[in-house]
Amino acid sequence: MTTSPESSGGVTQSHKPACPTAEMGRWPASWEQEMQSTVNYLWHTDDLLGQGATASVYKARNKKSGELVAVKVFNTASYLRPREVQVREFEVLRKLNHQNIIKLFAVEETGGSRQKVLVMEYCSSGSLLSALESPENAFGLPEDEFLVVLRCVVAGMNHLRENGIVHRDIKPGNIMRLVGEEGQSIYKLTDFGAARELDDDEKFVSVYGTEEYLHPDMYERAVLRKPQQKAFGVAVDLWSIGVTLYHAATGSLPFVPFGGPRRNKEIMYRITTEKPTGAIAGTQRLENGPLEWSYTLPITCQLSMGLQSQLVPILANILEVEQAKCWGFDQFFAETSDILQRVVVHVFSLPQAVVHHVYIHAHNTIAIFLEAVYKQTNVAPQHQEYLFEGHLCVLEPSLSAQHIAHTTASSPLTLFSMVCETPKGLAFRDRCRRQIWVLILHTPLKCHVTRAGGLPNLLRSVQRSGKGTPVETGRCGFNVVSTVRAALDIPKFFPKVDLQADYNTAKGVLGAGYQALRLAQALLTGQELMLRGLHWFVESLQATCRRTLEVTRMALLFLSSSLGTERFSNVAGVPEIQELKRAAELRSKLRTLAEVLSRCSHNITETKMTLSNLSSELMKNRDQVHADRSIQQIQCCLDKMYLIYKQFKKSRMRPGLGYNEEQIHKLDKVNFSHLAKRLLQVFQEERVQKYQASLVTHGKRMRVVHETRNHLRLVGCSVAACNTEAQGAQESLSKILDWLSHQLLQDRTKEAQASPPTTAPYPSPALKDLVLHMQELCKEMKVLASDLQDNNRVIEGLSRVPSAPDI
Amino acid sequence: MTTSPESSGGVTQSHKPACPTAEMGRWPASWEQEMQSTVNYLWHTDDLLGQGATASVYKARNKKSGELVAVKVFNTASYLRPREVQVREFEVLRKLNHQNIIKLFAVEETGGSRQKVLVMEYCSSGSLLSALESPENAFGLPEDEFLVVLRCVVAGMNHLRENGIVHRDIKPGNIMRLVGEEGQSIYKLTDFGAARELDDDEKFVSVYGTEEYLHPDMYERAVLRKPQQKAFGVAVDLWSIGVTLYHAATGSLPFVPFGGPRRNKEIMYRITTEKPTGAIAGTQRLENGPLEWSYTLPITCQLSMGLQSQLVPILANILEVEQAKCWGFDQFFAETSDILQRVVVHVFSLPQAVVHHVYIHAHNTIAIFLEAVYKQTNVAPQHQEYLFEGHLCVLEPSLSAQHIAHTTASSPLTLFSMVCETPKGLAFRDRCRRQIWVLILHTPLKCHVTRAGGLPNLLRSVQRSGKGTPVETGRCGFNVVSTVRAALDIPKFFPKVDLQADYNTAKGVLGAGYQALRLAQALLTGQELMLRGLHWFVESLQATCRRTLEVTRMALLFLSSSLGTERFSNVAGVPEIQELKRAAELRSKLRTLAEVLSRCSHNITETKMTLSNLSSELMKNRDQVHADRSIQQIQCCLDKMYLIYKQFKKSRMRPGLGYNEEQIHKLDKVNFSHLAKRLLQVFQEERVQKYQASLVTHGKRMRVVHETRNHLRLVGCSVAACNTEAQGAQESLSKILDWLSHQLLQDRTKEAQASPPTTAPYPSPALKDLVLHMQELCKEMKVLASDLQDNNRVIEGLSRVPSAPDI
Repeated sequence: MTTSPESSGGVTQSHKPACPTAEMGRWPASWEQEMQSTVNYLWHTDDLLGQGATASVYKARNKKSGELVAVKVFNTASYLRPREVQVREFEVLRKLNHQNIIKLFAVEETGGSRQKVLVMEYCSSGSLLSALESPENAFGLPEDEFLVVLRCVVAGMNHLRENGIVHRDIKPGNIMRLVGEEGQSIYKLTDFGAARELDDDEKFVSVYGTEEYLHPDMYERAVLRKPQQKAFGVAVDLWSIGVTLYHAATGSLPFVPFGGPRRNKEIMYRITTEKPTGAIAGTQRLENGPLEWSYTLPITCQLSMGLQSQLVPILANILEVEQAKCWGFDQFFAETSDILQRVVVHVFSLPQAVVHHVYIHAHNTIAIFLEAVYKQTNVAPQHQEYLFEGHLCVLEPSLSAQHIAHTTASSPLTLFSMVCETPKGLAFRDRCRRQIWVLILHTPLKCHVTRAGGLPNLLRSVQRSGKGTPVETGRCGFNVVSTVRAALDIPKFFPKVDLQADYNTAKGVLGAGYQALRLAQALLTGQELMLRGLHWFVESLQATCRRTLEVTRMALLFLSSSLGTERFSNVAGVPEIQELKRAAELRSKLRTLAEVLSRCSHNITETKMTLSNLSSELMKNRDQVHADRSIQQIQCCLDKMYLIYKQFKKSRMRPGLGYNEEQIHKLDKVNFSHLAKRLLQVFQEERVQKYQASLVTHGKRMRVVHETRNHLRLVGCSVAACNTEAQGAQESLSKILDWLSHQLLQDRTKEAQASPPTTAPYPSPALKDLVLHMQELCKEMKVLASDLQDNNRVIEGLSRVPSAPDI
Repeated sequence: MTTSPESSGGVTQSHKPACPTAEMGRWPASWEQEMQSTVNYLWHTDDLLGQGATASVYKARNKKSGELVAVKVFNTASYLRPREVQVREFEVLRKLNHQNIIKLFAVEETGGSRQKVLVMEYCSSGSLLSALESPENAFGLPEDEFLVVLRCVVAGMNHLRENGIVHRDIKPGNIMRLVGEEGQSIYKLTDFGAARELDDDEKFVSVYGTEEYLHPDMYERAVLRKPQQKAFGVAVDLWSIGVTLYHAATGSLPFVPFGGPRRNKEIMYRITTEKPTGAIAGTQRLENGPLEWSYTLPITCQLSMGLQSQLVPILANILEVEQAKCWGFDQFFAETSDILQRVVVHVFSLPQAVVHHVYIHAHNTIAIFLEAVYKQTNVAPQHQEYLFEGHLCVLEPSLSAQHIAHTTASSPLTLFSMVCETPKGLAFRDRCRRQIWVLILHTPLKCHVTRAGGLPNLLRSVQRSGKGTPVETGRCGFNVVSTVRAALDIPKFFPKVDLQADYNTAKGVLGAGYQALRLAQALLTGQELMLRGLHWFVESLQATCRRTLEVTRMALLFLSSSLGTERFSNVAGVPEIQELKRAAELRSKLRTLAEVLSRCSHNITETKMTLSNLSSELMKNRDQVHADRSIQQIQCCLDKMYLIYKQFKKSRMRPGLGYNEEQIHKLDKVNFSHLAKRLLQVFQEERVQKYQASLVTHGKRMRVVHETRNHLRLVGCSVAACNTEAQGAQESLSKILDWLSHQLLQDRTKEAQASPPTTAPYPSPALKDLVLHMQELCKEMKVLASDLQDNNRVIEGLSRVPSAPDI
């Protein structure tokens, strides 16, 4: 908390928080004397929250309600300021009323010395700066917390603009944190000592602020003391917000000359003013070395790629010194609101073994979601297939994204790509990005980590130290992922006791340790999600097997009922009947189909067995993951390291240590080093190696699963084709049945009409009888004919005799 | 840590730990002067860990390695003891070597005063007593931690017995806690000041120990100073272990006279000696009131019923004053080992909405597991059906229990009972035990909780205060669950400032608060598990739908191919052919079956829709559960309460408070009360009510799901029956096809044989032609016959003429 007397136009040069809130120790004997109060409030001067040039801030209590408040007590120096400057802070605060801006409750006076006291809202959890100073946040805030900061700062700033107020000293130290009733963080802008009313197009000439967060124009005059006469507008707040957000996202400042921002102010000014459009950070790694620009957030940043891709353009456009290119507040509010209105869908990509955060608007269609997934995973929308909690989950592109289930990082949508069975199989292996952080243990306290995609962006070029230079080692199927060789550069203690240096070293090591813990957790979660995702996929294949099997068995039953018992072999000499021949053919075809189906059924049963074996393998692996204790081991080292770090933090405030204390301090350093070494060993030998092994196995299993899936699809197609053919054959058979029935009926009908029931010699002669009778008839006729010939011969003979006298 | 000079036979009367480890405050100016050391070790007299009559224990460091140790420094009083008693502790410790017994590293002397110093293993995490004194454990340890205590105490004790050592002062304060490399607790027996060598059947006469944990025989002589001359055996340790385990499991002592164990020692003795067999606790609730016995652990105990049922018989048998009934060490080791060798399977019973812990041996068969589940859930083994991670999970009774997947409390096996569709449906509703803790807010700081089964045993008769009397309110389907009306009796502050009383009150309230938090978490987890379990069950029904639908559709396709196109109507006057009539009937039957199947298919589609709707309802509910913030709200109140409690804990050490401090203290009390009120309000109005509502909905949905399941089973049976019938009909049709083919072939064969191919005038005469020809033949024969008659007449006439002269 810093205040600057307007008269001197001074800029606070201190980056550290004025004084860390002292932990309540034992009650000192003189406690009672150090109490101060106003009419309604009471505080102890030990409860100092912050101190500036004109005032000190204490934690106080309402005498009646006990409510905790912050009181800002102005000192004598403050009264040297012009009257209108003295009252400006009250007036600004009175005008404002917003949950993300610290509230002014009252203005009172102390009892004895009659000093002015501002009674304000108390935030129990320190400032954003103190959060960023904690080793856990050495590489920036976690995604959720960052989004809370963004939401609060944007909302508070919006309220300031609506009221025509310019803050002029926005920085993490002036953003206080409060824990809400649900445990959530609420951030509030505070310290309006430098604030004044200023319309959008108005200008001011005094300089305020803290140099690391200062707009280059102000920096030029305030820090470099250049005699320019620029007037400044409301945009100065926007620049400070940009630096603040970068700091919150990464744990580091965006613009760092060699030796730090305060060591080389000319370079600092050059970095901010020469920064190319689109760049969001600039570093000078070597003394007098070149400036290096960065267009992305460092790999150590904890934010997901999904969020980073939204955030980076905003940072690039507000960290822009050219007024023509720089966004105004309106655009800033619009773009940040767009991020804040989005919901996150967690997607675990099974082929890549990575969790993605996909930010979409609830009113978007699912098609837009699929497209967003494509951007992060390179799996085309039409090839995306999802599992959620063990079951296939069909996402209809035309529906609203609200139909997507509520996901969490540990219960994400699991993405499976359908495309891997095509000859583009190579792309699958490439896309899998099975490369991983490789940790190389350099010294007991120095280790390097090489990364090549695939993991949450926990570690990238750690600590712009010059040791982690990017090395391109691999290409991926769709986009080139340049492999960044990053150093998880754990600093080393110097043997000599130097309380401040030792504290700094311990802090750095602890920060790296927390990063290693997060990475280890991500690796373990990744392993768990791979196994679970595969398990679910195998289960869904098992379900397909069961369904196909059931259909196949049903078809076989229906077929077997149509096969008949006898074969129609042609009797020699009997005229062929086409339909019967066809029926025989159809039945033979059905028999063949039945054989095919039976083979399919057998095949599926075998596939089921294979899948079952894979399932039990996965189960065993999951038990191993459950039994893994590396996270607990790392956590345990960290807990012990943290205790030593806390001791170092206390010690550094002391002027020096006695002999025995110094001995203990030295032993603590040794102890701390041992713990750090052990931590890295567990990380490397337990976690990373196991993860690497599991990725290799995962790749192999993914291939097996894909092959099985394709195989099952083929078998399924065969079964379907067989069924269609079988149904066709059955239909034909059914028609033949019709024909036969028809034939038989017709014949019988004619026969009935042909033989007249009563006149026929053989009332109902069989054809055979008829023929026999005809043969008899013929014989008789032959006898008759021969008799007739005999007779004729006799008559001829007689007629050759002289004709007898007429009778 | 207490030591008792053997000579006096004294019993430590103090129950409190000698002095809580002072948190490292600021470095006092006089730090350097208060250091002490031996040749190899160095400590600060502020780092006092414990103090007894003959020695003090400090946290110290190895001068070279920095390793932390505990040093026990004997004072002048200790040298008044007989020499053999003085050396006994070293000698006992030297003999022992076990990870659950504190290790002796060295015996050294201080530099100046040449006091004897025992250098021992340092346990950084205090004692089991300090763990039990923490408000979080006010109602005993969580199950996992309790099992660690049991394992460690049993193993350590076993080592003592193997070496013929009796400890004689076992109590939570003498069981130290260390955090292992994986963050797990390791407990170690310490303070062997009262220990001596003693064989199993040997006796001793001196009395040692701490009265709450003392065997009644020793108590009689040591506390009541009765002039009995009993000698004591190794069993005294077993009694102390019993009291210690009860304390660890419940947070309270088992034997409590009105006013506390130290207020009424005669009653204390009566409770321990008159305790009936099987009872594990005895309380006197009213002044001069009757003794009440308890045969179970209190309902507030955090241990699962599964573990309680194993533990209670052990406690009952070692808290047994009659030597004949009391277990020996061998039986104690055997029975505790049996518990410790078991693995836990987490089973969430969907009909009951409760998580059960089922303890089984890995070598048990699944049948034994199913039986164990039956004991806890009343769902008979043959009716148990399990889901795990979204999928049905078939547990083959004959297999080993090792085949059961690894479960956790948040990822349990989900039990579904198959029996609910039978008319025993009522049993389902009974068994569901939908009763729940009802929280009645009495006063702002006093609330009562009524419990009736169904929830983890978090709250039972809270604080044997006489206010929570058991009231039987309901019967369950299978066993009577007597409803216990338990008071979450939150004590009230007295308005007057009394630092010790206020601290005690705050501690009590905080303990109840943590209990409420755990209960709230259990309720939320229960809600989540209900929804997830139902969701999975619905998914599995959906899969059944899909499978049945596919089968039905397939059957319909096969049927449609057999229906034929024409109907065989009998032509009038044509003789009926039985087979054709039968075919017609079969086809008509197939058509009917097709209609039935089509209706089934329609029905399943409708069921699917219903299930989909239920699914989306469940999804919405799950989103609500995810959005629930009551746990965070309660946690938030607790965090703030904890800070005040910590302040009170510090204040109570001070002789008094100044005016302003007292004001702040009063305000803190008010604040604390407000927070407690808010906590209970959230618990009651947010958590409990929502849970109750969700239980009602769950019950309704369970009925729907059961009905759907039964309906689907019926439909499935219909489909199967239709299919069987259809297959039968198809088979008959196929036979008719055979018959028809046969008939036609036979006819044609006969015909072909009847007409001789070449001699016949009409080589291939149709029957019609044949008849025509025969008619012509007949006509010709008639003509021929009449010619012949004419001829015969001519010949007769000629022969009547006189015969002509011979030629």
